[in-house]
Amino acid sequence: MDEAISVSGDDLKATVASIFEKVGVPPEDAEVGADVLVLADLRGVDSHGVSNMLRSYLGGYQRGEINPRPNMSIVRETAATASVDSDRGLGTIVTPKAMEIAIRKAKEVGVGMVTIGNSRHLGMASYHAMLALEHDMIGICMTSAPPRMVPTFGAEPRLGTNPIAVAVPARNEPPFVFDAATSSVAQNKIEIARRLGADLEPGWLATEDGTPIMEEVPVPETYHLLPVGATRELGSHKGYGLACVVDIFAGVLTGFGYGAVPGRPNFGHYVAAYNISGFDDPDHFKDEMDGWLQMMKSTKPAPGHERVLVAGQPEAEMEAVRRKDGIPLHPEVVQFMRDTCAELSVRCLF
Amino acid sequence: MDEAISVSGDDLKATVASIFEKVGVPPEDAEVGADVLVLADLRGVDSHGVSNMLRSYLGGYQRGEINPRPNMSIVRETAATASVDSDRGLGTIVTPKAMEIAIRKAKEVGVGMVTIGNSRHLGMASYHAMLALEHDMIGICMTSAPPRMVPTFGAEPRLGTNPIAVAVPARNEPPFVFDAATSSVAQNKIEIARRLGADLEPGWLATEDGTPIMEEVPVPETYHLLPVGATRELGSHKGYGLACVVDIFAGVLTGFGYGAVPGRPNFGHYVAAYNISGFDDPDHFKDEMDGWLQMMKSTKPAPGHERVLVAGQPEAEMEAVRRKDGIPLHPEVVQFMRDTCAELSVRCLF
Repeated sequence: MDEAISVSGDDLKATVASIFEKVGVPPEDAEVGADVLVLADLRGVDSHGVSNMLRSYLGGYQRGEINPRPNMSIVRETAATASVDSDRGLGTIVTPKAMEIAIRKAKEVGVGMVTIGNSRHLGMASYHAMLALEHDMIGICMTSAPPRMVPTFGAEPRLGTNPIAVAVPARNEPPFVFDAATSSVAQNKIEIARRLGADLEPGWLATEDGTPIMEEVPVPETYHLLPVGATRELGSHKGYGLACVVDIFAGVLTGFGYGAVPGRPNFGHYVAAYNISGFDDPDHFKDEMDGWLQMMKSTKPAPGHERVLVAGQPEAEMEAVRRKDGIPLHPEVVQFMRDTCAELSVRCLF
Repeated sequence: MDEAISVSGDDLKATVASIFEKVGVPPEDAEVGADVLVLADLRGVDSHGVSNMLRSYLGGYQRGEINPRPNMSIVRETAATASVDSDRGLGTIVTPKAMEIAIRKAKEVGVGMVTIGNSRHLGMASYHAMLALEHDMIGICMTSAPPRMVPTFGAEPRLGTNPIAVAVPARNEPPFVFDAATSSVAQNKIEIARRLGADLEPGWLATEDGTPIMEEVPVPETYHLLPVGATRELGSHKGYGLACVVDIFAGVLTGFGYGAVPGRPNFGHYVAAYNISGFDDPDHFKDEMDGWLQMMKSTKPAPGHERVLVAGQPEAEMEAVRRKDGIPLHPEVVQFMRDTCAELSVRCLF
């Protein structure tokens, strides 16, 4: 494998923002879209970073599937809630605006909750959830994606990978940031295994007819994703049920349909902000969170493991490294970026 | 095994309510406590019904660990939020009152969210979530329980079984009711396997040192529960992360500590109500939910399975049967009830 090329987060972000602008996205929005993609790279969530998503976003804009200048509107509203029509905007860019609405409502009444219909791909869910942190709020984000996952006992995909992100502020510790698909494994891990000729782990996939694959075998030609838990005995009805909750909150509740609606040409999203001060003194809460995080991380490890991690910790550690050393990009990705910049007459900063 | 004895839900409920009253619970509260227990039995959630929980609740009252006449108070409040000190009240009985507060707030501002600290066992989480349904609201309930489950890679229990319940109204279909522990399997399934001399399923438990048991072996003398997903490869960090979310929402956020606080002598709970009308026309939403539920249930089944189920459906089917035919109680349970009634001079209605 060719050696990766290190690119600074700032250079990558400025370059991506210029590319977004060239396909018609207003400068302020282009900045946000680039920030979401590059933060994923900085935190080691490469599946949702520039290398994995930019090509798809560009194609969406160029084919007219994503609206570069959406007229986002509030369809319905109460003091604590809103539902928003994102007018075919990229979720990556419109969701931070929905989160702003949620945060404003949480300042006023303690909780803000916003659904976003008629949208496109979300980007890294935890980006949006983490926007709540600086306001001493808990942030939540979910997205109802197109079907790829079978229900427990099912032979047809009915649910997307439907991730859930939850961000909780602490004082001196890095925040708790949970961000996970409700499927057993991420789609891109399967494709990486296929590329490398590696065997599947048991419980990652179902065959075409819905049977969970519980042996270590090569990646089959066709397959479906399984809910986390893999089989009923191992608790797949829990992963399946949570994927349903996401499909309801970020799909049905938007009023724009759910993942399996035939031809629904969009993603639905859901964000919420809970104001800590509506429940407890925020300083007391953040001290408690520091204690809770330290307690969890200091758990005695099981044999063969060095330490116990807590959600958000590996990403915070990776972010510290990559902010210093840059983001390692595969030479093919660098070439794609340079070619794209050349095509669009954008200056590539690396 | 001796044959089960069928008891009508009404007789069981009236008998249980009389028992609660005899240990000092006011009549109205006794009625609620009995309703929660018996609804679990009616819905086939025997782990949280009379046979499995009443003995423990009675012991708690008799030892003075549960306060039969708690003075529940609101510690902090905004338009959409509240945190409540339940004054050592049984969660089963105080949580419906907290849910009433959440529903009232959701009527006013769209969302209501209430934490309940200094409490005792919750009972069936979905009971409390389902209280929202008749108001055209989505109901949520979680509970932070004492540690029994290891974190991924961990050798010490740091988290309870920490269940999540979500109830969503539909029009003609039974409501969507998800209610599941974030552990791979319920504690009582392990004890049933031990009693029957049956082998474990792979991925149900960890050994004392935290190693996941991935073979079919007899139940070991000592063990820990695993998060849903069982191993890191199968996604146990997702079950672990969700158990953490529950411990934060229903533990840290109550201001009364979390599951692993040494000697925390209590459970913490969390309820929320989301008013559908804050997001969409409730009639449109409920029609959509009917369509969504039918879509999910009509999924083509995988080989070896007759049908695909959706959360709340098996429980609704069981409830229909048991409301007609009664609740089958093991003769030992019937004897325990009769003995308890005799001891407390309460009339046993069966």
